[in-house]
Amino acid sequence: MAQAQELKAIKLNEPNKKRGLPVMEALSVRASVRDWSPNEIGLQDLSDLLWAADGINRPDSKKRTASSAQNAQDVDIYVFLKDGVYLYDAAGQALVPVAAGDHRNEVVMPPAGGPGGPGGPPPAKPENAPRPQPEGPPGVKPGNPPTPAPVLLVLVSDVSRFRGGTLELKKEWGAIDTGIVSQNIALFCAATGLATRPRASMDRDKIRTLLKLKDTQFPMLNHPVGHSK
Amino acid sequence: MAQAQELKAIKLNEPNKKRGLPVMEALSVRASVRDWSPNEIGLQDLSDLLWAADGINRPDSKKRTASSAQNAQDVDIYVFLKDGVYLYDAAGQALVPVAAGDHRNEVVMPPAGGPGGPGGPPPAKPENAPRPQPEGPPGVKPGNPPTPAPVLLVLVSDVSRFRGGTLELKKEWGAIDTGIVSQNIALFCAATGLATRPRASMDRDKIRTLLKLKDTQFPMLNHPVGHSK
Repeated sequence: MAQAQELKAIKLNEPNKKRGLPVMEALSVRASVRDWSPNEIGLQDLSDLLWAADGINRPDSKKRTASSAQNAQDVDIYVFLKDGVYLYDAAGQALVPVAAGDHRNEVVMPPAGGPGGPGGPPPAKPENAPRPQPEGPPGVKPGNPPTPAPVLLVLVSDVSRFRGGTLELKKEWGAIDTGIVSQNIALFCAATGLATRPRASMDRDKIRTLLKLKDTQFPMLNHPVGHSK
Repeated sequence: MAQAQELKAIKLNEPNKKRGLPVMEALSVRASVRDWSPNEIGLQDLSDLLWAADGINRPDSKKRTASSAQNAQDVDIYVFLKDGVYLYDAAGQALVPVAAGDHRNEVVMPPAGGPGGPGGPPPAKPENAPRPQPEGPPGVKPGNPPTPAPVLLVLVSDVSRFRGGTLELKKEWGAIDTGIVSQNIALFCAATGLATRPRASMDRDKIRTLLKLKDTQFPMLNHPVGHSK
Protein backbone atom coordinates (compact mmCIF):
# COMPACT_ATOMS: atom_id res chain seq x y z
CA MET A 1 0.00 0.00 0.00
CA ALA A 2 1.36 3.41 -0.91
CA GLN A 3 2.66 5.52 1.92
CA ALA A 4 1.53 9.12 2.23
CA GLN A 5 4.75 10.48 0.85
CA GLU A 6 4.53 8.19 -2.19
CA LEU A 7 1.11 9.35 -3.29
CA LYS A 8 1.56 11.60 -6.33
CA ALA A 9 -0.75 14.04 -8.05
CA ILE A 10 -2.55 12.60 -11.08
CA LYS A 11 -2.94 14.69 -14.20
CA LEU A 12 -6.32 13.90 -15.69
CA ASN A 13 -6.96 13.77 -19.43
CA GLU A 14 -8.73 16.46 -21.35
CA PRO A 15 -12.43 15.62 -21.12
CA ASN A 16 -14.13 14.23 -24.19
CA LYS A 17 -16.90 16.78 -24.56
CA LYS A 18 -18.78 14.98 -27.33
CA ARG A 19 -19.37 11.79 -25.44
CA GLY A 20 -22.47 10.03 -24.16
CA LEU A 21 -26.06 9.22 -24.99
CA PRO A 22 -28.47 12.07 -25.74
CA VAL A 23 -29.73 13.59 -22.50
CA MET A 24 -33.26 12.13 -22.81
CA GLU A 25 -31.84 8.66 -23.46
CA ALA A 26 -29.53 8.99 -20.46
CA LEU A 27 -32.54 9.97 -18.34
CA SER A 28 -34.41 6.93 -19.67
CA VAL A 29 -31.76 4.50 -18.44
CA ARG A 30 -30.73 6.25 -15.22
CA ALA A 31 -31.05 3.90 -12.24
CA SER A 32 -29.30 3.38 -8.93
CA VAL A 33 -26.88 0.43 -8.94
CA ARG A 34 -25.82 -1.47 -5.81
CA ASP A 35 -23.53 -4.31 -6.91
CA TRP A 36 -20.15 -3.80 -8.49
CA SER A 37 -17.91 -5.82 -10.73
CA PRO A 38 -14.23 -5.55 -9.74
CA ASN A 39 -13.39 -4.06 -13.15
CA GLU A 40 -11.35 -0.90 -12.92
CA ILE A 41 -12.18 2.45 -14.50
CA GLY A 42 -9.74 3.86 -17.05
CA LEU A 43 -8.12 7.28 -16.84
CA GLN A 44 -10.29 8.73 -19.61
CA ASP A 45 -13.49 7.61 -17.88
CA LEU A 46 -12.27 9.06 -14.58
CA SER A 47 -11.25 12.31 -16.27
CA ASP A 48 -14.60 12.65 -18.02
CA LEU A 49 -16.53 11.68 -14.88
CA LEU A 50 -14.96 14.40 -12.76
CA TRP A 51 -15.25 17.07 -15.41
CA ALA A 52 -18.92 16.13 -15.87
CA ALA A 53 -19.47 16.25 -12.11
CA ASP A 54 -18.16 19.75 -11.53
CA GLY A 55 -15.55 20.69 -14.12
CA ILE A 56 -14.97 24.13 -15.58
CA ASN A 57 -17.09 24.51 -18.72
CA ARG A 58 -16.45 28.25 -19.25
CA PRO A 59 -12.71 28.82 -18.77
CA ASP A 60 -12.97 32.64 -19.05
CA SER A 61 -15.19 32.94 -15.97
CA LYS A 62 -14.13 29.65 -14.34
CA LYS A 63 -17.80 28.67 -14.13
CA ARG A 64 -18.71 25.03 -13.74
CA THR A 65 -20.89 22.27 -15.13
CA ALA A 66 -22.80 22.44 -11.80
CA SER A 67 -24.33 25.73 -10.74
CA SER A 68 -24.00 26.75 -7.11
CA ALA A 69 -25.75 29.22 -4.86
CA GLN A 70 -24.13 32.64 -5.23
CA ASN A 71 -21.62 30.89 -7.56
CA ALA A 72 -19.89 29.89 -4.31
CA GLN A 73 -18.56 26.64 -5.85
CA ASP A 74 -18.90 25.15 -2.41
CA VAL A 75 -18.83 21.47 -3.35
CA ASP A 76 -15.47 19.68 -3.27
CA ILE A 77 -15.13 16.18 -4.66
CA TYR A 78 -12.86 13.75 -2.83
CA VAL A 79 -11.88 10.79 -4.99
CA PHE A 80 -11.25 7.50 -3.19
CA LEU A 81 -9.16 5.10 -5.30
CA LYS A 82 -7.44 1.84 -4.38
CA ASP A 83 -4.12 3.56 -3.64
CA GLY A 84 -5.39 6.63 -1.84
CA VAL A 85 -7.70 9.59 -1.55
CA TYR A 86 -7.39 12.65 -3.78
CA LEU A 87 -9.12 16.02 -4.11
CA TYR A 88 -10.44 16.95 -7.58
CA ASP A 89 -8.76 20.15 -8.75
CA ALA A 90 -11.12 21.49 -11.41
CA ALA A 91 -8.84 24.36 -12.46
CA GLY A 92 -5.93 21.99 -13.06
CA GLN A 93 -8.07 19.01 -14.24
CA ALA A 94 -5.99 16.97 -11.80
CA LEU A 95 -6.16 14.93 -8.61
CA VAL A 96 -4.30 16.26 -5.58
CA PRO A 97 -3.17 13.66 -2.99
CA VAL A 98 -4.92 13.78 0.39
CA ALA A 99 -4.33 10.42 2.13
CA ALA A 100 -2.62 7.19 1.12
CA GLY A 101 -4.27 3.82 1.42
CA ASP A 102 -7.49 2.12 0.39
CA HIS A 103 -10.29 3.78 2.35
CA ARG A 104 -13.15 3.00 -0.04
CA ASN A 105 -14.92 0.50 2.19
CA GLU A 106 -13.90 2.10 5.42
CA VAL A 107 -15.94 5.29 5.16
CA VAL A 108 -19.25 3.96 3.86
CA MET A 109 -21.96 1.58 4.90
CA PRO A 110 -22.22 -1.67 2.94
CA PRO A 111 -24.90 -1.58 0.25
CA ALA A 112 -27.11 -4.04 2.12
CA GLY A 113 -27.25 -1.78 5.17
CA GLY A 114 -28.18 1.43 3.41
CA PRO A 115 -31.49 2.84 2.27
CA GLY A 116 -32.45 3.36 -1.31
CA GLY A 117 -30.99 6.68 -2.22
CA PRO A 118 -29.32 9.76 -0.85
CA GLY A 119 -30.34 10.36 2.69
CA GLY A 120 -30.22 7.16 4.60
CA PRO A 121 -29.97 8.24 8.22
CA PRO A 122 -26.33 8.30 9.25
CA PRO A 123 -26.04 5.55 11.86
CA ALA A 124 -25.40 6.76 15.39
CA LYS A 125 -23.35 3.60 15.82
CA PRO A 126 -22.22 2.27 12.44
CA GLU A 127 -22.66 -1.32 13.51
CA ASN A 128 -23.33 -2.51 10.00
CA ALA A 129 -20.38 -0.71 8.48
CA PRO A 130 -17.51 -2.89 7.29
CA ARG A 131 -14.63 -2.79 9.69
CA PRO A 132 -11.72 -0.60 8.68
CA GLN A 133 -9.35 -2.42 6.36
CA PRO A 134 -6.20 -3.39 8.21
CA GLU A 135 -3.07 -2.13 6.49
CA GLY A 136 -1.60 -4.77 4.22
CA PRO A 137 -0.76 -5.55 0.63
CA PRO A 138 -3.58 -4.85 -1.85
CA GLY A 139 -5.68 -7.88 -2.58
CA VAL A 140 -5.10 -9.52 0.77
CA LYS A 141 -8.25 -8.84 2.72
CA PRO A 142 -9.22 -10.55 5.92
CA GLY A 143 -12.89 -11.35 6.29
CA ASN A 144 -15.31 -10.75 3.45
CA PRO A 145 -15.80 -7.03 2.99
CA PRO A 146 -18.06 -6.14 0.08
CA THR A 147 -16.36 -5.60 -3.26
CA PRO A 148 -16.05 -1.87 -3.47
CA ALA A 149 -16.68 0.03 -6.65
CA PRO A 150 -13.32 1.06 -8.13
CA VAL A 151 -14.06 4.73 -7.45
CA LEU A 152 -15.82 6.34 -4.52
CA LEU A 153 -16.64 10.04 -4.79
CA VAL A 154 -17.39 11.87 -1.54
CA LEU A 155 -19.11 15.24 -1.99
CA VAL A 156 -18.31 17.82 0.69
CA SER A 157 -19.86 21.30 0.89
CA ASP A 158 -17.76 24.07 2.42
CA VAL A 159 -20.44 26.47 3.61
CA SER A 160 -17.88 29.16 4.48
CA ARG A 161 -17.84 30.02 0.77
CA PHE A 162 -21.37 31.45 0.91
CA ARG A 163 -21.76 35.15 1.54
CA GLY A 164 -24.16 35.83 4.39
CA GLY A 165 -27.01 33.62 5.54
CA THR A 166 -27.55 31.62 8.70
CA LEU A 167 -25.78 28.27 9.13
CA GLU A 168 -29.13 26.53 8.56
CA LEU A 169 -29.63 28.32 5.23
CA LYS A 170 -26.06 27.73 4.16
CA LYS A 171 -26.41 24.01 4.83
CA GLU A 172 -29.62 23.98 2.77
CA TRP A 173 -27.83 25.67 -0.15
CA GLY A 174 -24.90 23.28 0.25
CA ALA A 175 -27.28 20.31 0.13
CA ILE A 176 -28.99 21.63 -3.01
CA ASP A 177 -25.61 22.28 -4.65
CA THR A 178 -24.53 18.75 -3.74
CA GLY A 179 -27.65 17.32 -5.38
CA ILE A 180 -26.79 19.22 -8.55
CA VAL A 181 -23.28 17.73 -8.68
CA SER A 182 -24.75 14.32 -7.81
CA GLN A 183 -27.05 14.33 -10.82
CA ASN A 184 -24.21 15.32 -13.13
CA ILE A 185 -22.45 12.16 -11.92
CA ALA A 186 -25.57 10.02 -12.32
CA LEU A 187 -26.33 11.24 -15.83
CA PHE A 188 -22.72 10.96 -16.99
CA CYS A 189 -22.72 7.35 -15.80
CA ALA A 190 -26.09 6.61 -17.41
CA ALA A 191 -24.84 8.14 -20.67
CA THR A 192 -21.61 6.14 -20.81
CA GLY A 193 -22.51 2.70 -19.46
CA LEU A 194 -21.02 3.26 -16.02
CA ALA A 195 -22.97 2.60 -12.84
CA THR A 196 -23.48 4.68 -9.70
CA ARG A 197 -25.88 5.59 -6.96
CA PRO A 198 -26.06 8.47 -4.48
CA ARG A 199 -25.85 7.55 -0.81
CA ALA A 200 -26.04 9.67 2.32
CA SER A 201 -25.00 6.79 4.58
CA MET A 202 -21.38 7.21 5.53
CA ASP A 203 -19.18 7.52 8.58
CA ARG A 204 -18.93 11.29 8.72
CA ASP A 205 -16.61 11.37 11.73
CA LYS A 206 -14.14 9.06 10.02
CA ILE A 207 -14.31 11.13 6.85
CA ARG A 208 -13.74 14.37 8.78
CA THR A 209 -10.63 12.94 10.41
CA LEU A 210 -9.22 11.27 7.30
CA LEU A 211 -9.72 14.30 5.05
CA LYS A 212 -8.80 16.79 7.79
CA LEU A 213 -11.99 18.77 7.15
CA LYS A 214 -12.67 22.17 8.66
CA ASP A 215 -15.76 22.73 10.80
CA THR A 216 -17.42 24.49 7.87
CA GLN A 217 -17.04 21.46 5.57
CA PHE A 218 -19.95 19.01 5.57
CA PRO A 219 -19.81 15.57 3.93
CA MET A 220 -23.19 15.43 2.19
CA LEU A 221 -23.31 12.46 -0.15
CA ASN A 222 -21.16 9.74 -1.65
CA HIS A 223 -21.21 8.06 -5.06
CA PRO A 224 -19.59 4.71 -5.72
CA VAL A 225 -18.81 4.59 -9.46
CA GLY A 226 -17.90 1.52 -11.45
CA HIS A 227 -19.33 -1.20 -13.61
CA SER A 228 -22.53 -3.03 -12.81
CA LYS A 229 -22.04 -6.63 -11.72
CA MET B 1 -57.78 35.38 -17.23
CA ALA B 2 -59.18 31.99 -16.47
CA GLN B 3 -61.25 31.61 -13.35
CA ALA B 4 -60.46 28.79 -10.94
CA GLN B 5 -63.35 26.69 -12.10
CA GLU B 6 -62.30 27.09 -15.75
CA LEU B 7 -58.77 25.77 -15.27
CA LYS B 8 -58.63 22.29 -16.78
CA ALA B 9 -56.15 19.45 -16.47
CA ILE B 10 -53.62 19.31 -19.31
CA LYS B 11 -52.66 15.97 -20.77
CA LEU B 12 -48.98 16.13 -21.64
CA ASN B 13 -47.49 14.43 -24.69
CA GLU B 14 -45.50 11.23 -24.54
CA PRO B 15 -41.92 12.31 -23.91
CA ASN B 16 -39.47 12.08 -26.80
CA LYS B 17 -36.83 9.87 -25.17
CA LYS B 18 -34.29 10.14 -27.97
CA ARG B 19 -33.92 13.89 -27.83
CA GLY B 20 -31.12 16.24 -26.92
CA LEU B 21 -27.39 16.76 -27.21
CA PRO B 22 -25.06 14.06 -25.86
CA VAL B 23 -24.67 14.47 -22.10
CA MET B 24 -21.09 15.79 -22.27
CA GLU B 25 -22.09 18.38 -24.88
CA ALA B 26 -25.04 19.46 -22.73
CA LEU B 27 -22.67 19.85 -19.78
CA SER B 28 -20.37 21.94 -21.97
CA VAL B 29 -23.06 24.47 -22.77
CA ARG B 30 -24.91 24.51 -19.44
CA ALA B 31 -25.13 28.05 -18.07
CA SER B 32 -27.57 30.04 -15.97
CA VAL B 33 -29.74 32.43 -17.99
CA ARG B 34 -31.38 35.57 -16.59
CA ASP B 35 -33.17 37.32 -19.46
CA TRP B 36 -36.11 35.88 -21.28
CA SER B 37 -37.66 36.37 -24.68
CA PRO B 38 -41.46 36.40 -24.56
CA ASN B 39 -41.58 33.34 -26.87
CA GLU B 40 -43.81 30.60 -25.57
CA ILE B 41 -42.85 26.97 -25.02
CA GLY B 42 -44.72 24.34 -27.00
CA LEU B 43 -46.56 21.39 -25.50
CA GLN B 44 -43.90 18.89 -26.58
CA ASP B 45 -41.13 20.93 -24.96
CA LEU B 46 -43.16 21.23 -21.76
CA SER B 47 -43.97 17.52 -21.79
CA ASP B 48 -40.34 16.55 -22.31
CA LEU B 49 -39.11 19.09 -19.73
CA LEU B 50 -41.30 17.70 -16.96
CA TRP B 51 -40.57 14.08 -17.77
CA ALA B 52 -36.85 14.91 -17.79
CA ALA B 53 -37.19 16.72 -14.47
CA ASP B 54 -38.82 13.90 -12.53
CA GLY B 55 -40.82 11.64 -14.82
CA ILE B 56 -41.25 7.89 -14.46
CA ASN B 57 -38.49 6.13 -16.40
CA ARG B 58 -39.23 2.59 -15.10
CA PRO B 59 -43.01 2.10 -15.28
CA ASP B 60 -42.94 -1.29 -13.55
CA SER B 61 -41.51 0.11 -10.31
CA LYS B 62 -42.69 3.70 -10.85
CA LYS B 63 -39.13 4.88 -10.32
CA ARG B 64 -38.10 8.25 -11.61
CA THR B 65 -35.48 10.10 -13.64
CA ALA B 66 -34.42 11.74 -10.35
CA SER B 67 -33.37 9.52 -7.47
CA SER B 68 -34.60 10.44 -4.00
CA ALA B 69 -33.56 9.54 -0.49
CA GLN B 70 -35.26 6.29 0.52
CA ASN B 71 -37.07 6.49 -2.84
CA ALA B 72 -39.42 8.86 -1.03
CA GLN B 73 -40.16 10.81 -4.24
CA ASP B 74 -40.52 13.85 -2.04
CA VAL B 75 -40.15 16.55 -4.68
CA ASP B 76 -43.32 17.92 -6.28
CA ILE B 77 -43.11 20.23 -9.27
CA TYR B 78 -45.57 23.10 -9.47
CA VAL B 79 -45.86 24.50 -12.98
CA PHE B 80 -46.68 28.22 -13.27
CA LEU B 81 -48.06 29.10 -16.71
CA LYS B 82 -49.75 32.24 -17.97
CA ASP B 83 -53.25 30.93 -17.25
CA GLY B 84 -52.63 29.27 -13.94
CA VAL B 85 -50.63 26.99 -11.68
CA TYR B 86 -50.60 23.22 -12.07
CA LEU B 87 -49.05 20.24 -10.27
CA TYR B 88 -47.03 17.81 -12.40
CA ASP B 89 -48.59 14.36 -12.17
CA ALA B 90 -45.78 12.02 -13.17
CA ALA B 91 -47.93 8.87 -13.14
CA GLY B 92 -50.47 10.45 -15.48
CA GLN B 93 -47.94 12.54 -17.47
CA ALA B 94 -50.38 15.40 -16.94
CA LEU B 95 -50.83 18.76 -15.24
CA VAL B 96 -53.42 19.00 -12.47
CA PRO B 97 -54.95 22.47 -11.86
CA VAL B 98 -54.04 24.17 -8.59
CA ALA B 99 -54.81 27.90 -8.97
CA ALA B 100 -56.05 30.07 -11.81
CA GLY B 101 -54.28 33.25 -12.88
CA ASP B 102 -50.82 34.40 -13.84
CA HIS B 103 -48.66 34.12 -10.73
CA ARG B 104 -45.28 33.78 -12.46
CA ASN B 105 -43.93 37.19 -11.43
CA GLU B 106 -45.78 37.34 -8.15
CA VAL B 107 -43.92 34.60 -6.30
CA VAL B 108 -40.34 35.30 -7.30
CA MET B 109 -37.82 38.08 -7.03
CA PRO B 110 -36.94 39.89 -10.26
CA PRO B 111 -33.69 38.61 -11.82
CA ALA B 112 -31.85 41.83 -10.97
CA GLY B 113 -32.56 41.39 -7.27
CA GLY B 114 -31.43 37.82 -6.90
CA PRO B 115 -28.03 36.25 -6.38
CA GLY B 116 -26.26 34.06 -8.90
CA GLY B 117 -27.68 30.63 -8.32
CA PRO B 118 -29.78 28.57 -6.02
CA GLY B 119 -29.65 29.87 -2.52
CA GLY B 120 -30.15 33.56 -2.56
CA PRO B 121 -31.34 34.40 0.92
CA PRO B 122 -35.11 34.60 0.96
CA PRO B 123 -35.92 38.24 1.64
CA ALA B 124 -37.46 38.90 5.02
CA LYS B 125 -39.35 41.72 3.34
CA PRO B 126 -39.58 41.16 -0.40
CA GLU B 127 -39.29 44.85 -1.16
CA ASN B 128 -37.68 44.24 -4.52
CA ALA B 129 -40.25 41.72 -5.60
CA PRO B 130 -42.59 42.76 -8.40
CA ARG B 131 -46.01 43.69 -7.12
CA PRO B 132 -48.71 41.07 -7.50
CA GLN B 133 -50.36 41.22 -10.90
CA PRO B 134 -53.84 42.71 -10.62
CA GLU B 135 -56.49 40.54 -12.20
CA GLY B 136 -57.18 41.61 -15.75
CA PRO B 137 -57.01 40.49 -19.35
CA PRO B 138 -53.70 38.90 -20.36
CA GLY B 139 -51.29 41.32 -21.96
CA VAL B 140 -52.59 44.36 -20.09
CA LYS B 141 -50.03 44.94 -17.39
CA PRO B 142 -49.80 48.08 -15.33
CA GLY B 143 -46.30 49.25 -14.53
CA ASN B 144 -43.26 47.56 -15.97
CA PRO B 145 -42.87 44.17 -14.37
CA PRO B 146 -40.03 42.10 -15.81
CA THR B 147 -40.91 39.83 -18.71
CA PRO B 148 -41.39 36.46 -17.07
CA ALA B 149 -40.14 33.28 -18.64
CA PRO B 150 -43.13 31.45 -20.14
CA VAL B 151 -42.80 28.66 -17.57
CA LEU B 152 -41.86 28.84 -13.91
CA LEU B 153 -41.23 25.56 -12.10
CA VAL B 154 -41.37 25.65 -8.29
CA LEU B 155 -39.80 22.63 -6.59
CA VAL B 156 -41.35 21.69 -3.26
CA SER B 157 -40.11 18.88 -0.99
CA ASP B 158 -42.67 17.12 1.19
CA VAL B 159 -40.48 15.80 4.00
CA SER B 160 -43.35 13.76 5.49
CA ARG B 161 -42.58 11.17 2.80
CA PHE B 162 -39.27 10.21 4.43
CA ARG B 163 -39.29 7.34 6.90
CA GLY B 164 -37.64 8.35 10.18
CA GLY B 165 -35.01 11.00 10.70
CA THR B 166 -35.09 14.35 12.45
CA LEU B 167 -36.69 17.34 10.75
CA GLU B 168 -33.19 18.76 10.17
CA LEU B 169 -32.06 15.59 8.39
CA LYS B 170 -35.25 15.35 6.37
CA LYS B 171 -34.83 18.92 5.16
CA GLU B 172 -31.24 18.12 4.17
CA TRP B 173 -32.39 15.09 2.15
CA GLY B 174 -35.19 17.16 0.63
CA ALA B 175 -32.66 19.82 -0.40
CA ILE B 176 -30.36 17.22 -1.99
CA ASP B 177 -33.30 15.63 -3.81
CA THR B 178 -34.35 19.06 -5.05
CA GLY B 179 -30.85 19.67 -6.42
CA ILE B 180 -31.08 16.39 -8.32
CA VAL B 181 -34.37 17.40 -9.97
CA SER B 182 -32.93 20.86 -10.61
CA GLN B 183 -30.00 19.51 -12.58
CA ASN B 184 -32.28 17.31 -14.68
CA ILE B 185 -34.08 20.53 -15.64
CA ALA B 186 -30.82 22.38 -16.34
CA LEU B 187 -29.35 19.62 -18.49
CA PHE B 188 -32.57 19.05 -20.43
CA CYS B 189 -32.63 22.77 -21.23
CA ALA B 190 -28.94 22.81 -22.18
CA ALA B 191 -29.50 19.78 -24.42
CA THR B 192 -32.48 21.23 -26.28
CA GLY B 193 -31.70 24.93 -26.65
CA LEU B 194 -33.97 26.08 -23.86
CA ALA B 195 -32.78 28.37 -21.08
CA THR B 196 -33.14 28.19 -17.31
CA ARG B 197 -31.50 28.92 -14.03
CA PRO B 198 -32.06 27.68 -10.47
CA ARG B 199 -33.05 30.29 -7.90
CA ALA B 200 -33.73 30.03 -4.19
CA SER B 201 -35.09 33.58 -3.99
CA MET B 202 -38.84 33.47 -3.79
CA ASP B 203 -41.70 34.58 -1.61
CA ARG B 204 -42.20 31.36 0.33
CA ASP B 205 -45.15 32.66 2.35
CA LYS B 206 -47.01 33.65 -0.79
CA ILE B 207 -46.24 30.28 -2.37
CA ARG B 208 -47.46 28.43 0.73
CA THR B 209 -50.75 30.28 0.66
CA LEU B 210 -51.30 30.07 -3.10
CA LEU B 211 -50.48 26.37 -3.35
CA LYS B 212 -52.17 25.51 -0.03
CA LEU B 213 -49.03 23.68 1.15
CA LYS B 214 -48.93 21.56 4.28
CA ASP B 215 -46.45 22.35 7.06
CA THR B 216 -44.27 19.46 5.87
CA GLN B 217 -43.95 20.90 2.35
CA PHE B 218 -40.96 23.19 1.79
CA PRO B 219 -40.52 25.34 -1.33
CA MET B 220 -36.82 24.81 -2.06
CA LEU B 221 -35.99 26.21 -5.47
CA ASN B 222 -37.55 27.67 -8.59
CA HIS B 223 -36.61 27.43 -12.26
CA PRO B 224 -37.82 29.88 -14.85
CA VAL B 225 -37.71 28.08 -18.22
CA GLY B 226 -37.94 29.67 -21.62
CA HIS B 227 -35.89 31.04 -24.45
CA SER B 228 -32.85 33.22 -23.96
CA LYS B 229 -33.37 36.86 -24.99
